[in-house]
Amino acid sequence: MPRPREFDEHEVVARAARLFRRYGYHATSTRDLGGELGLTPSSLYRTFGDKHTLFLRALDHYRATDSAEAGVRLNSDGPCRDVLRAWLLWLVSGDEEYPDLGCFVVNTTTELGTADPEVRRRTEAAFEATREAIAAVLRRGCRDGELSADLDVDAAVELLFTTVLGLRVRERAGHDPARLARTIDSAIRALGPEPHRDGAPNPEG
Amino acid sequence: MPRPREFDEHEVVARAARLFRRYGYHATSTRDLGGELGLTPSSLYRTFGDKHTLFLRALDHYRATDSAEAGVRLNSDGPCRDVLRAWLLWLVSGDEEYPDLGCFVVNTTTELGTADPEVRRRTEAAFEATREAIAAVLRRGCRDGELSADLDVDAAVELLFTTVLGLRVRERAGHDPARLARTIDSAIRALGPEPHRDGAPNPEG
Repeated sequence: MPRPREFDEHEVVARAARLFRRYGYHATSTRDLGGELGLTPSSLYRTFGDKHTLFLRALDHYRATDSAEAGVRLNSDGPCRDVLRAWLLWLVSGDEEYPDLGCFVVNTTTELGTADPEVRRRTEAAFEATREAIAAVLRRGCRDGELSADLDVDAAVELLFTTVLGLRVRERAGHDPARLARTIDSAIRALGPEPHRDGAPNPEG
Repeated sequence: MPRPREFDEHEVVARAARLFRRYGYHATSTRDLGGELGLTPSSLYRTFGDKHTLFLRALDHYRATDSAEAGVRLNSDGPCRDVLRAWLLWLVSGDEEYPDLGCFVVNTTTELGTADPEVRRRTEAAFEATREAIAAVLRRGCRDGELSADLDVDAAVELLFTTVLGLRVRERAGHDPARLARTIDSAIRALGPEPHRDGAPNPEG
């Protein structure tokens, strides 16, 4: 009969994700993980195999929590510009305890590059989910007449997605949140002015 | 009488910068450095002190070469949109041998965050130099009538700078260069249409 786990596996993975996000894959040793997670090395190995497997579990955890929360926020009701702005401000608002964590997916991408196929599959899936969530908001905006029907949605998605990655780097760099908020406003403005609702051409746009 | 150096110190720092850029600070061991640079550990320590000091030298080297070349490119003659586009395409064009190196400054920022003040001083100086070089191109564009005199240059600089950081993350992630080129076109278009040269209002803008 298998022994019951003496710890909450989900909680351990969540804490591992925070460590890896803060320090990176290579700087987080098995010893650090064991100490922070309150596990003996043998307990850690028995449950997760090795550091790499725990790292993949941590990435999956991040995508299932933080990335999923981003999806929910982007799927909110309200004017599409307001939804985008609120989501972007939330993204760069940081963490009370550790304000400069940045994004686990971005940090992992820049640390490991394209060298690890199992990691890359996960980071690319996270990027694709972000692109799709942005695309859904923009398409709704065009449909509801909040954005120009002529907006090149694919191009706008790529640009906004790229801006998001840059914002996460700047959050990690500890840049002034007020400055990032102004950058967010500029990114929203780049979507163009709101079309006139009566169908007449907008003299400003 | 001091012994002459048995190696080219500048060349060693250049090769160290490539290693650190590719693998990151923590994943590059003193043993890797010694092997790749063809130096004994004692030679390495005698010249550079420790890995951290060599890393700071590598960052300084990168800023004095790659970052300086970016400055020269942004200072080129020609229409400001063309200068910006050529610079951005060059930034994401990668390296023949290792296409997904990304930017040493961005990789360092996301790996080490705000924890290392000596590193941070260098990465922030590099970021500030990029912002200033972008600002100079945009100001020239406004002065020469290629950009609207009403352009909010400070806001445009922040947005373009943020886009640049995102592009470097995407280059590091191995994203399709053609897709990045289209994103660059969108970022340039976000600067607004070219004002009419005769001073009449532009019917499209």
